[in-house]
Amino acid sequence: MKQEGNIPYKIYLEEQEMPVSWYNMRADMKVKPAPLLNPGTHKPMTFEELQGVFCDELIRQELDDTTAYIEIPQEIRSFYRMYRPSPLVRAYCLEEKLRTPAKIYYKFEGNNTSGSHKLNSAIAQAYYAKKQGLKGVTTETGAGQWGTALSMACAYLELDCKVYMVKVSYEQKPFRREVMRTYGASVTPSPSDTTEVGRRILAAHPGTTGSLGCAISEAVEAAAVNEGYRYVLGSVLNQVLLHQSVIGLESKAAMDKYGIVPDIIIGCAGGGSNLGGLIAPFMGEKLRGERDYRIIAVEPASCPSLTRGKFAYDFCDTGMICPLAKMYTLGSGFIPSPNHAGGLRFHGMSSTLSQLYHDGLMEARSVEQTAVFEAAEMFARVEGILPAPESAHAIRAAVDEAVKCRETGEEKTILFGLTGTGYFDMVAYEKFHNGEMSDHIPTDAELQAGFDGIPKFPGNEF
Amino acid sequence: MKQEGNIPYKIYLEEQEMPVSWYNMRADMKVKPAPLLNPGTHKPMTFEELQGVFCDELIRQELDDTTAYIEIPQEIRSFYRMYRPSPLVRAYCLEEKLRTPAKIYYKFEGNNTSGSHKLNSAIAQAYYAKKQGLKGVTTETGAGQWGTALSMACAYLELDCKVYMVKVSYEQKPFRREVMRTYGASVTPSPSDTTEVGRRILAAHPGTTGSLGCAISEAVEAAAVNEGYRYVLGSVLNQVLLHQSVIGLESKAAMDKYGIVPDIIIGCAGGGSNLGGLIAPFMGEKLRGERDYRIIAVEPASCPSLTRGKFAYDFCDTGMICPLAKMYTLGSGFIPSPNHAGGLRFHGMSSTLSQLYHDGLMEARSVEQTAVFEAAEMFARVEGILPAPESAHAIRAAVDEAVKCRETGEEKTILFGLTGTGYFDMVAYEKFHNGEMSDHIPTDAELQAGFDGIPKFPGNEF
Repeated sequence: MKQEGNIPYKIYLEEQEMPVSWYNMRADMKVKPAPLLNPGTHKPMTFEELQGVFCDELIRQELDDTTAYIEIPQEIRSFYRMYRPSPLVRAYCLEEKLRTPAKIYYKFEGNNTSGSHKLNSAIAQAYYAKKQGLKGVTTETGAGQWGTALSMACAYLELDCKVYMVKVSYEQKPFRREVMRTYGASVTPSPSDTTEVGRRILAAHPGTTGSLGCAISEAVEAAAVNEGYRYVLGSVLNQVLLHQSVIGLESKAAMDKYGIVPDIIIGCAGGGSNLGGLIAPFMGEKLRGERDYRIIAVEPASCPSLTRGKFAYDFCDTGMICPLAKMYTLGSGFIPSPNHAGGLRFHGMSSTLSQLYHDGLMEARSVEQTAVFEAAEMFARVEGILPAPESAHAIRAAVDEAVKCRETGEEKTILFGLTGTGYFDMVAYEKFHNGEMSDHIPTDAELQAGFDGIPKFPGNEF
Repeated sequence: MKQEGNIPYKIYLEEQEMPVSWYNMRADMKVKPAPLLNPGTHKPMTFEELQGVFCDELIRQELDDTTAYIEIPQEIRSFYRMYRPSPLVRAYCLEEKLRTPAKIYYKFEGNNTSGSHKLNSAIAQAYYAKKQGLKGVTTETGAGQWGTALSMACAYLELDCKVYMVKVSYEQKPFRREVMRTYGASVTPSPSDTTEVGRRILAAHPGTTGSLGCAISEAVEAAAVNEGYRYVLGSVLNQVLLHQSVIGLESKAAMDKYGIVPDIIIGCAGGGSNLGGLIAPFMGEKLRGERDYRIIAVEPASCPSLTRGKFAYDFCDTGMICPLAKMYTLGSGFIPSPNHAGGLRFHGMSSTLSQLYHDGLMEARSVEQTAVFEAAEMFARVEGILPAPESAHAIRAAVDEAVKCRETGEEKTILFGLTGTGYFDMVAYEKFHNGEMSDHIPTDAELQAGFDGIPKFPGNEF
């Protein structure tokens, strides 16, 4: 294996080089992301209105679009040190395999037992809930990475954790469920009869296998009706992107240490938690006019919110009990085809990322599932990490860019986010090995049906 | 979380501090482990006799009991750098949870995609096979960690890999199977009709779900009859302990760097690969009279080869086609109860470790399965790593020792080996959560039946 100059295979920061503050991209955005709206009044949600759902400090972070750096509390930094810094890996073997002059780096967030980057925000949200003296938190999980991470964080802080897990995942991913139970969480298949909204959905759609939007509704209701509980969410929200900025800050510190400057930064995008975190400090430089980067969001062709969605106010949940968020959306009623394996199945996208994309500060592309698994398998064989299907979307785009470099001879430096491992996704890999993998790219008519469900009101034209 | 002086949560060596040679404990043993015997003649196996099964360089390593340090080839060191050094973790959270004055450290070998320490020897064995110009290697796998690691190593070196997987695991652990297929290995459920010995076993025991001993027989036969193939094994052998010494060498280097001296060193023991590797340099000091350490092997009560076995020459495989090894054994016909979840189900034990134990240089204890999972779950909750059931045997013993320190007030320093993660063992965790976990401690009569199968010949009295 070749090795370039002084650049090791894995760059680990020293503990004293780790970030002490999160970075809030919104502070440097000229056009701020639109505020959450009250679905009844269509007026911006106030701190007080949000208090029934979120804990106080997280609301402050959610609403703060002017403070650039927010200190990471000592307790969270202690927890981070259990599994951070995560390695920034130079993909020497992948480069060799692709015979590309490109220099490829990836930030690997799967080296903690929760298996993904989700833990970065889970511990922060659990910490603020604990600090407020709450008994516990509620949440939903689809692919299970968020639920696993949150369970782990809650176990550490001895906080109760109620997870609503999309029923089809609960049944088809029993191992994920058992990981959460190992960490002491209670896991309920959604829709369930434990909530009003769950009973309503069950009555309307008996036999439904659930959806993420529906599980969100149940978790939000459970937080509202249970004394001492608040709701937490693993993506989409501004606060989540803030916490995840630790990914990008570490990446940038590691690159700066070795004088590396990426030309292209690539991340997979479901709700935007990983992408928003990875790009944060780079986007900051771009927003401040200090340096330019190409930034690429990669989403599945089966759930193409950025590339084919509308930029409008929409619900984050199927039950339509959450605030409205301005974002690229396929409509809260849009359900991606169930044959899609990854966790990138959310109909919307972070408001912050949506605004940046709308303003031309980043690109987006969609990729098809079989091509994603081809990249995943190649990557596993040469780099020795079996990636989560979500992460493999970024791998696909990085490989495509590196192949372009082979053709043009350009020595571009590519950074991508490897969000996690695919241990719990072997059913999808099995389908791929057996040639049984399929994909469904929504037709225009299917998309239109989703768009029809987006609420219409003055100021929400699309 | 408390943090002591200058000792970080995780100690990572710098690349230039990583070992450049493996350490061969046998060189410092006054009583050498007994040689492998030809099962027909009962004479020591010669280099030439072993050539049909193993590749040349590995035979040299297997037979060499005088060279203390054997250089790690540059190519293997390059591969190691992809996932090594592995972290030496100070278990601050566990100490706090146990309210113990003991200082607990663990060497975590699960931070590579194969999920365990097995990769350390897999890459070495695959490398020497490749260097000899072979087409591929054959092996067996039970719990699947070894097969996964070998598949990954072979993918990296573009070597063919045929894995015989115990049929019950093949069926009950389809995800493990798919990981191996992702790395390009062919996986055959054992016993199979692809080998003579497989057909013989199937004829004698129709409907059998297989055993590790039977899969070894098939893999050895497949290596012997396929041109350009050799057999490789993930434990028991001297060469495997040699490669795994990288675990102990890194641990010792990291401890020396911070002036830490362990009082007690604990490892789980199935065939002995992890334990033998972890203790190597410490045992070296002990053998040379430089320093004393308490060393504890932990095995399952359901498969107690050290604590209840006989020290005798025995077959390593059920088909009785392998050489005889002098070791603590329960008899090659002993089958531990199938309700045991872990991978520590081998009837024998490394000859080197057996000799050290026989000579009073290390201790052994057995632990029961429910107690093991209790320790595993507590560990997961406080340390954030969900351990493999095998590794949890060592956790159990480390916790027990730390609790003793709480009672006596002694500030002992404990080092244990955390061999891997339990992602593929969630069925066992599920049983534990549901209170359905059971264990079977073999009766004296059951053990006697196993002992009756140990070959009797002059010089093999027990």
